[in-house]
Amino acid sequence: MNNTTTAQSVNAVITSEELLHHWQGHRSLTRRLIVAFPEKEFTEFSIGGMRTASALMEELLHIAAPGIREIATRETIKADFSHAQPKSKTEILKLWDEATEEINHYWAMIPMERFHEEILAFGMYPGSVWSSIFYFIDNEIHHRAQAYVYLRALGIEPPAFYER
Amino acid sequence: MNNTTTAQSVNAVITSEELLHHWQGHRSLTRRLIVAFPEKEFTEFSIGGMRTASALMEELLHIAAPGIREIATRETIKADFSHAQPKSKTEILKLWDEATEEINHYWAMIPMERFHEEILAFGMYPGSVWSSIFYFIDNEIHHRAQAYVYLRALGIEPPAFYER
Repeated sequence: MNNTTTAQSVNAVITSEELLHHWQGHRSLTRRLIVAFPEKEFTEFSIGGMRTASALMEELLHIAAPGIREIATRETIKADFSHAQPKSKTEILKLWDEATEEINHYWAMIPMERFHEEILAFGMYPGSVWSSIFYFIDNEIHHRAQAYVYLRALGIEPPAFYER
Repeated sequence: MNNTTTAQSVNAVITSEELLHHWQGHRSLTRRLIVAFPEKEFTEFSIGGMRTASALMEELLHIAAPGIREIATRETIKADFSHAQPKSKTEILKLWDEATEEINHYWAMIPMERFHEEILAFGMYPGSVWSSIFYFIDNEIHHRAQAYVYLRALGIEPPAFYER
């Protein structure tokens, strides 16, 4: 009951710390999804002409830490969505863990009053700080779910969606 | 610049109205995805033993408006995830539009100070009001993205993810 009382005293939909924790929970699930892929299928398998899981996960890496760093530092970062050489699970997981730390580092530099500031994400996508960050998270859920279907098509049980 | 100044004066990550608008934007995209399906494949096609698009969309309907109504009224709603008779596109779209109105109606009854209240969603899933609502939204993005893969596998171009 003490927790409830304390929690109810927060007069906000969600705090900055909660949103970071929420996202990192999603990122932890995405990491487990990557681990669940067979190495070969990670870089080769796809459905309906879509990108491979490796390419989808690389896109998420091009967005997450660079996007938060850009917001925190206000230094424009050019969008880089190239994935010429497919990256292995080991490479992606290493970059994933580095991004986890980088997101935590730069997130702490974004004060609450900046979430409604209008920005150009990657120098070209207009929105607010909050709507940009929500886009980063929603886009991760979107592409991860597509990789869920790849795993199912391969006969592999993916990690449970509700476990973060 | 006036907009920017006004927006920056909101000292919150996101307001209740913005979160509703954000979700209804996602729901509008999901509606267009449903429309894009051929009737037969909507109730019959799936990949890797997963549920059909009809069943996935019906799950979203079992969650969205009932979930918000439960939060707003504090009357426990029993989770109902049955989909014994697959529903057609026409049926799902009708329920979708009714849910849109119902969500707007009950959302307006949830004051800001309740978003950190601890609840049991559908009488059984513990979380806060905000984390429950985020789960509803994230789960929609997740299942919608799986239906995106179904469309791609059927050779049909789905609506753009970034258009809401």
